[in-house]
Amino acid sequence: MERHIYLEDIPLDEAWAAWRGALVDAGLWRPLGMEKVPLAEANGRTTATAIWARLSSPHYHASAMDGFAVRAQDTHSATETNPVRLTLADDFDATATDLHPAKAVNTGHPLPAWANSVVMIEHTQLVTDEHGRTAIEIRASLPPWQHVRAMGEDMVATELVLPANHTLRPVDLGALAGSGHTAVPVYRRPRVAIIPTGSELISPEDAARDGVRPGQIIEYNSLVLAAQVENWGGQATRWPIVPDELEAIQTAVRAAAATHDLILLNAGSSAGSEDYTAHVVQSLGQLLVHGVAVRPGHPVILGMIQSDMVTRWQGDTVTAGSSVTSSPLHPVTPSPSHPLIPIIGVPGYPVSAALTGEIFVEPLLARWRGQPPYQPQTLTAVLTRKVVSHTGDDDFVRVAVGNVGGRTLATPISRGAGVISSLVRADGIVRIPRFSEGADAGTAVTVHLYRPTHEIENSILVIGSHDLTLDLLAQFLAERSQRRLVSANVGSLGGLVALRRGEAHLAGSHLLDPETGEYNISAIHQYLPGQTMALVTLVGREQGWIVPKGNPKGLSGWGDAANPDVQIVNRQRGAGTRVLLDYELGKLGITPEQVKGYGREEYTHLAVAAAVASGTADAGPGIRAAARALELDFVPLAHEQYDLVIPQAYFESDLLRPLLDLLHDGDFRTAVAAMPGYDVTPMGQVRNS
Amino acid sequence: MERHIYLEDIPLDEAWAAWRGALVDAGLWRPLGMEKVPLAEANGRTTATAIWARLSSPHYHASAMDGFAVRAQDTHSATETNPVRLTLADDFDATATDLHPAKAVNTGHPLPAWANSVVMIEHTQLVTDEHGRTAIEIRASLPPWQHVRAMGEDMVATELVLPANHTLRPVDLGALAGSGHTAVPVYRRPRVAIIPTGSELISPEDAARDGVRPGQIIEYNSLVLAAQVENWGGQATRWPIVPDELEAIQTAVRAAAATHDLILLNAGSSAGSEDYTAHVVQSLGQLLVHGVAVRPGHPVILGMIQSDMVTRWQGDTVTAGSSVTSSPLHPVTPSPSHPLIPIIGVPGYPVSAALTGEIFVEPLLARWRGQPPYQPQTLTAVLTRKVVSHTGDDDFVRVAVGNVGGRTLATPISRGAGVISSLVRADGIVRIPRFSEGADAGTAVTVHLYRPTHEIENSILVIGSHDLTLDLLAQFLAERSQRRLVSANVGSLGGLVALRRGEAHLAGSHLLDPETGEYNISAIHQYLPGQTMALVTLVGREQGWIVPKGNPKGLSGWGDAANPDVQIVNRQRGAGTRVLLDYELGKLGITPEQVKGYGREEYTHLAVAAAVASGTADAGPGIRAAARALELDFVPLAHEQYDLVIPQAYFESDLLRPLLDLLHDGDFRTAVAAMPGYDVTPMGQVRNS
Repeated sequence: MERHIYLEDIPLDEAWAAWRGALVDAGLWRPLGMEKVPLAEANGRTTATAIWARLSSPHYHASAMDGFAVRAQDTHSATETNPVRLTLADDFDATATDLHPAKAVNTGHPLPAWANSVVMIEHTQLVTDEHGRTAIEIRASLPPWQHVRAMGEDMVATELVLPANHTLRPVDLGALAGSGHTAVPVYRRPRVAIIPTGSELISPEDAARDGVRPGQIIEYNSLVLAAQVENWGGQATRWPIVPDELEAIQTAVRAAAATHDLILLNAGSSAGSEDYTAHVVQSLGQLLVHGVAVRPGHPVILGMIQSDMVTRWQGDTVTAGSSVTSSPLHPVTPSPSHPLIPIIGVPGYPVSAALTGEIFVEPLLARWRGQPPYQPQTLTAVLTRKVVSHTGDDDFVRVAVGNVGGRTLATPISRGAGVISSLVRADGIVRIPRFSEGADAGTAVTVHLYRPTHEIENSILVIGSHDLTLDLLAQFLAERSQRRLVSANVGSLGGLVALRRGEAHLAGSHLLDPETGEYNISAIHQYLPGQTMALVTLVGREQGWIVPKGNPKGLSGWGDAANPDVQIVNRQRGAGTRVLLDYELGKLGITPEQVKGYGREEYTHLAVAAAVASGTADAGPGIRAAARALELDFVPLAHEQYDLVIPQAYFESDLLRPLLDLLHDGDFRTAVAAMPGYDVTPMGQVRNS
Repeated sequence: MERHIYLEDIPLDEAWAAWRGALVDAGLWRPLGMEKVPLAEANGRTTATAIWARLSSPHYHASAMDGFAVRAQDTHSATETNPVRLTLADDFDATATDLHPAKAVNTGHPLPAWANSVVMIEHTQLVTDEHGRTAIEIRASLPPWQHVRAMGEDMVATELVLPANHTLRPVDLGALAGSGHTAVPVYRRPRVAIIPTGSELISPEDAARDGVRPGQIIEYNSLVLAAQVENWGGQATRWPIVPDELEAIQTAVRAAAATHDLILLNAGSSAGSEDYTAHVVQSLGQLLVHGVAVRPGHPVILGMIQSDMVTRWQGDTVTAGSSVTSSPLHPVTPSPSHPLIPIIGVPGYPVSAALTGEIFVEPLLARWRGQPPYQPQTLTAVLTRKVVSHTGDDDFVRVAVGNVGGRTLATPISRGAGVISSLVRADGIVRIPRFSEGADAGTAVTVHLYRPTHEIENSILVIGSHDLTLDLLAQFLAERSQRRLVSANVGSLGGLVALRRGEAHLAGSHLLDPETGEYNISAIHQYLPGQTMALVTLVGREQGWIVPKGNPKGLSGWGDAANPDVQIVNRQRGAGTRVLLDYELGKLGITPEQVKGYGREEYTHLAVAAAVASGTADAGPGIRAAARALELDFVPLAHEQYDLVIPQAYFESDLLRPLLDLLHDGDFRTAVAAMPGYDVTPMGQVRNS
């Protein structure tokens, strides 16, 4: 059956259907094969067949106690006052003697053939009988099979021990060994080749040794994909970086196809002048899908490679940059001597690459070990912000999740496909289906979780102004407690708004009231009227201009913002630093129009510092620590107070206790004081709004 | 601080407190140390320190699209009708030329220093300007930083990338590489020695090669413990089996202490004549706890070994079998040159051993990698049967869990500590706290789950008579669907009672009505009055006597049960086979008193066959397949019908659909027909009660 889909951006379910169909046709939509592995190496592997017991367990009638094996019928008349006497006998032949026998046994010892019960040693007395032989006395009758582990009590030979498709746990290995097995048939691990392509790529090792130039990109998608493959039961081979040359990529793919079950060709899957993946797949096999309507992830390629293509591909000429032709060179039909190897063109942006792994690689690897696709734990949460989605796409939105005031909240995280830290910080994924155009704030959504729920229950959500001290606080909390600090940077005012909307446990804020010179109180009265807030000072810090090394433009005061020769970078509206700058400029009578770069907004101190470091701005308002972090200079102009604004109920909660305790912890204070421009004297002081 | 607790069976929390205290004193209640591993080997490891970004990512302003880098301010006047023309220029010096420049860039390329925005290639037109130079035309103005991934957009150098105590996932490796790291400090894996002791033990490999004699026990606890240790982040060393000799065990423990962080000494932890563990611990260090009040698990030993005891232990003489003395030979104090190595005496019964791993080993290994103890997912379920617990013990009850009729049910599984298959089959554990004396049927209990909840939602609970066909059904279901068949064997009548109590989705039953010769209908009317049941025939099968090879006692009819020379084994009350036997004996006028062994009850056909195979019975009633499975002979006496009794609502449910479909599946019918004594002709026929 022919399946050629060259539409750009076909829907996810259609893409999967086409690919699954091709896999079925190629005989690849089933486990790839099995191997027998010793039990000691089988933990976590998946049984490829049912396993039936070879031996019974126990394989003999075993004493379950330390004591004496006896015949129950010999004890019938025993009572407290009228003990029965049983003579110790190692061998006993009922046809040769009329002895009432007993034999000492320890736990696990076999019962003699004549015995059918065990009396515990503590229920016997050693005596000498009338013939001078050693005997025991018993003062209660025994039922048959008392304290006996009967043959087959655990497992009977031929019984089912484990079904196929069962992922082996430690106790399963015990059951297999106990039922007579030394090895177990499991699905073999699929071999997955991961080929990074791109002349701009540099390995992390080369980058660390030689440094990294603008335009060079540190290649780490292969690390992420390889770890995903290992987690999903495959064996990953990471190829060295292949430059953007058609022949070099073809050579790598051919070599991989000869020895692997699946190929992940990373990047070059779009339609740019150096995007060869589609050409490579077409020249070596069959291109099934080019472009899937998912975000992030769009330029996914799905195809099949013939593993013995040596003679064929060399005869073809494909020009880099030419558009993909609308039919493959030859129709591809699977044959045993030319097996088909599935290939996925994985997009280059790291978030797209990781999600492509979850969406396309995981279900196939699961199928190859007889499992359904991974089902993450889910929970229902309320979306805190509106999500706007491209109408034709399934949109995979990363979210932070936390419980605030009895509600479970999902806050969308940065949506850039290049921001790997957004996946690192994500607690889960919300899938916005195509044609829904997004979801409004307040919508109940299903979150596919990346973390166990108890971690989410232990999450403290802080939204507001960013400060490096919050990173240190997160670090100390992780080391000292089971709490997890989840922070979102939206500026001081944004934090107070988040508190008002019940979306955070606390907010970091440094909003100066120009009237009173007090920090935060008047803003709280304005934005959180009638609510009791605890204001806990986190730190005092220096504000001023972040400038390049040597302060080349010679800034010395806020007024330099109006210098036409100075290009600044600003903070976003609602940031405490922006409020401070506006206040100081207002005092000097400077209007925004007079300030070059006033409209360029960054969301953190470090982002402002990064703008200055990159040379695209001459100065930006911020704190000394940010300047120091990027080895910039700093022009100090103000001292300010950075508070944690905490609703009274959370201030008194167990959840926040470890965080508040840290503000009085010597190690933490020392660590903060070591950062330049910070004053820990006021740390931990509490006011009420 | 001295801690010597030699009480038998101290409560679990006291045992843990004593042991934790000793670990704290020895400086061992914290991560053991760290090592730096390459990122490619760091998946699943736990960060030992916080990791801060070394590089920003991107480390330069990068184009986020294929297109042209421009200056946003040059595009201000562009409109649909009034395009702006920008000249292509690779190098541009604003002081030297008044060009409005543009430069072709691909995704990921660095922006030229003069540029601050990118226009997508599809929004441009190539033209030739008035000087004959190549230019682009743009018909809409651009804001600054459009389609630019600004330096530090993902991570800014010096920012926190990951906190300490974070278990690394694939995406984390990407974030580490992207922020300039090639390796990561992680906690080192604890080395755990697992020493099996016992002269009765035989390795699975030796058992498979040489066969296994009565009294020999296949040693597999070390397999289970090693796999547990690996799952919990440790490196396990499995010692060869050590015989029950004090010196041999001491030698093994000393060797292990010299090179490991934790020793698990398996068995010999009780107080029998060959139980050396307490002596060994005492002679080489300090015995902290001997006996913990948990079931299963009682004879747990907790102690500390001095890792350099060569000269000391050789001078001591401890007699095997002597009682444990009440104080250690020397008080043990930790010193850097004689570090203390924790040792756990693990009980020998496999369920006790595995639970000792969960209770005592896992929390320590978690602590050693900076983690809290594992928190299993829990759910609340209704206990289906009364559990009676020893009053002084914390009782860990294995349960099967399933959803039946909207209720989540927990059914206790066999409680024998020797029955490893009970842990294999368990869906979770219910902890009955000490002093509660158990829990009544109907009590809501918390189950600590061994399986994800979706597997439990896909569980089909069948309770009733056992048949080998159910094992095959379980096997086919596991291979063909996401359903899991969970079966409990309580006999035909027990199954109908379970249906009445809403504790199963279906029951396997073969209850003959002597009046009508019909199977099951009248029993259903009696036990499930007024309820509509679908009766689906699973299989027809032969019933008769299971006898030893060659039928030495020459049985030929049911009447042979009354032969005083014949010792039988029976099925339990309520089993269809028992009903059949009673019916046939009644017809012959034989009373139970005339039948030797009538009162010895087994719960499955295979258990009856095992009794015959072991020589403790001359015959037992059952099916041909059970006789064949254990290579016994069979005297056929009756044909009977084995039905699945299914409440109408479940008969029509999606849950049972895959199971019912299998009854019409050719492969399944062939597999059943291949078993001796089975007739698949009636399979799948449906009647209503």
